[in-house]
Amino acid sequence: MSVLINDIEVVKTETSKINDIDFDNLKFGQVYSDHMLVCDYENGAWKAPKVMPYQNISLEPSAKIFHYGQSVFEGMKAYKDADGGVWLFRPMENFNRLNISSKRLAIPEIPEAYFLDGLKTLLEVDQDWIPQKEGSSLYIRPFVFASGTGLHASPANAYKFIICTAPSGSYFSGKVKVLIETKYSRSANGGVGYAKAGGNYAGQFYPTQLAIDKGYQQVIWTDDTSHEYIEEAGAMNVFIRINDTLITSPTSDRILDGITRKSLIDLARSKGINVEVRKIKVSELVEAAENGSLKELFGAGTAAVISPIAGFGYQGKDYELPELKETYASSLKKAITDIQTNKAEDPFGWRYKVL
Amino acid sequence: MSVLINDIEVVKTETSKINDIDFDNLKFGQVYSDHMLVCDYENGAWKAPKVMPYQNISLEPSAKIFHYGQSVFEGMKAYKDADGGVWLFRPMENFNRLNISSKRLAIPEIPEAYFLDGLKTLLEVDQDWIPQKEGSSLYIRPFVFASGTGLHASPANAYKFIICTAPSGSYFSGKVKVLIETKYSRSANGGVGYAKAGGNYAGQFYPTQLAIDKGYQQVIWTDDTSHEYIEEAGAMNVFIRINDTLITSPTSDRILDGITRKSLIDLARSKGINVEVRKIKVSELVEAAENGSLKELFGAGTAAVISPIAGFGYQGKDYELPELKETYASSLKKAITDIQTNKAEDPFGWRYKVL
Ligand SMILES: Cc1ncc(COP(=O)(O)O)c(C=O)c1O
Ligand SMILES: Cc1ncc(COP(=O)(O)O)c(C=O)c1O
Repeated sequence: MSVLINDIEVVKTETSKINDIDFDNLKFGQVYSDHMLVCDYENGAWKAPKVMPYQNISLEPSAKIFHYGQSVFEGMKAYKDADGGVWLFRPMENFNRLNISSKRLAIPEIPEAYFLDGLKTLLEVDQDWIPQKEGSSLYIRPFVFASGTGLHASPANAYKFIICTAPSGSYFSGKVKVLIETKYSRSANGGVGYAKAGGNYAGQFYPTQLAIDKGYQQVIWTDDTSHEYIEEAGAMNVFIRINDTLITSPTSDRILDGITRKSLIDLARSKGINVEVRKIKVSELVEAAENGSLKELFGAGTAAVISPIAGFGYQGKDYELPELKETYASSLKKAITDIQTNKAEDPFGWRYKVL
Repeated sequence: MSVLINDIEVVKTETSKINDIDFDNLKFGQVYSDHMLVCDYENGAWKAPKVMPYQNISLEPSAKIFHYGQSVFEGMKAYKDADGGVWLFRPMENFNRLNISSKRLAIPEIPEAYFLDGLKTLLEVDQDWIPQKEGSSLYIRPFVFASGTGLHASPANAYKFIICTAPSGSYFSGKVKVLIETKYSRSANGGVGYAKAGGNYAGQFYPTQLAIDKGYQQVIWTDDTSHEYIEEAGAMNVFIRINDTLITSPTSDRILDGITRKSLIDLARSKGINVEVRKIKVSELVEAAENGSLKELFGAGTAAVISPIAGFGYQGKDYELPELKETYASSLKKAITDIQTNKAEDPFGWRYKVL
């Protein structure tokens, strides 16, 4: 039996799993809320989305997702404030980026209303799943993949757009040590690195495992041509503080245009911090580490928010970051989180009220 | 009800589709045989494979294949000779390459027996699906993908290895015109280009569509650093004939080590053709086209076998290949096909008898 909410068909689950969830001890992205949004592309058009119980998807073995990696995704969070208000952070940025990714992967773009009204309806139905505890949130995963069949290497003629959500705690625990990679690469000039394409992530798993085996948690990628320039981390853009200047690489066709990254640039500037958006040589980082001018290194992304980096390895040598009392990382993290969770003014108009 | 064939559990379909198939008018990879091989990786080990009716796969929306493109595949063919004998071509090469690809994608490697005995059993069960008509064959698609769940960007803990097969006609019809790409790229130095990773293919779809819109059928990729060197085509390695020398690029971490390519190198040399394996500058190709020394250009791969190229576009200019009476492409195609289909001696020991 279905009902209409915001003009969207909703089929509610008969057996909620919510009482099985320990909201005080949430991991990241491992338990899923009761419902999901599903939207099908067939015969040249996206059909109206539906909210339905979270359930398995049934596909032919010849569905192109299994063979050609034709998929894109997004990562967002919903926050619940002290009064029970539900908020998103710059959702139109995710919507636009999803379609930028889709275009590069030859996937048909999603209509705005299907994305935004669909997401709002899903959040309304599953609002009890949004954690209120500090540091927790409802992680939102919109994704699109090729469900159409055929063993010819060409775009599919059918796709599924799905949003599922997962009440989540933090992505990393504690400070991380990173390896600056000089052999493997994440993306090519003229490739798909700027898209949130599935294949970009699988390609990182093996080099990241090698780094983990050496005692690091994450890889920082460099450009594939010279391996001389810092690009980004696995699922985070990278910021470097040298003395009192915050530096981050410009985005390119190899680097994801992170929403956290661009928000932090604006926030830092509004606090009077000098921010430089320019290419960063690994040698500059190493030199700054050696002469003591390197104060901070951190990753920035929706999942991890801001992840301070305690040290980095490069060409067999390890470098440590100083332990400062007051860091840009922690003041910026507080500033962005306070905006996201409706604890502070929102001068930029980034917050988006859902409920 | 299941039976054991070659020690492998086989569940036969109760409703064969074989009478619905028009074996005289086969397209490529669009109809699937009655059965498939399925093998699951769980708790750190591959479980014994089973042959079962071709059927849908049911997965959680959080299965990592939908998000992180963690998948690899192979492409092979089975041939039926005039006496009904069933043959594969260098299957161990595909098995080894599948595991090379898997390793790069952090997918657990498949045991040889599961692959080879599994495939032989599948072919035995579906032997009536192997076309005998010249130019047709049973296309075989082994693939492995992440079925384990989780929204954390890290390798899955469960995988599926599946082989499905499709009686198929030719991949391309007629000669093709190709565009030599100078903006988009297929793979990075230190990336996954040498692996048959799903994501490598989806990344090609959009640039290939742009090329198709301009009147070409395929893209020839160049290196992503300088765009000065010929790499390979979408699913084929590339050969160039200048005067009487056949040239093909060396493989690298950006280029797939094609089995057709290496077989053609051996075959051509055995016929006394001078073969050079070396980097090829686009400028060399253009110059040869202009001064008339460029005699042939063709792609080589399992699906298309040898695909003669009639012309190429580069930086807004079109170049035509001469129409020769006797081509290396056609004599090599006949030679390799005759070996594959048991019509000629097999001095290299490439043919592999299944039934
Ligand atoms: C490769 C990559 N870089 C950077 C980011 C950070 O982007 P955002 O801040 O929009 O989450 C992400 C993930 O979201 C990512 O996958
Ligand atoms: C990218 C790419 N290059 C080359 C080839 C040709 O390889 P093989 O001759 O082993 O089929 C293929 C396909 O099989 C391919 O996908």
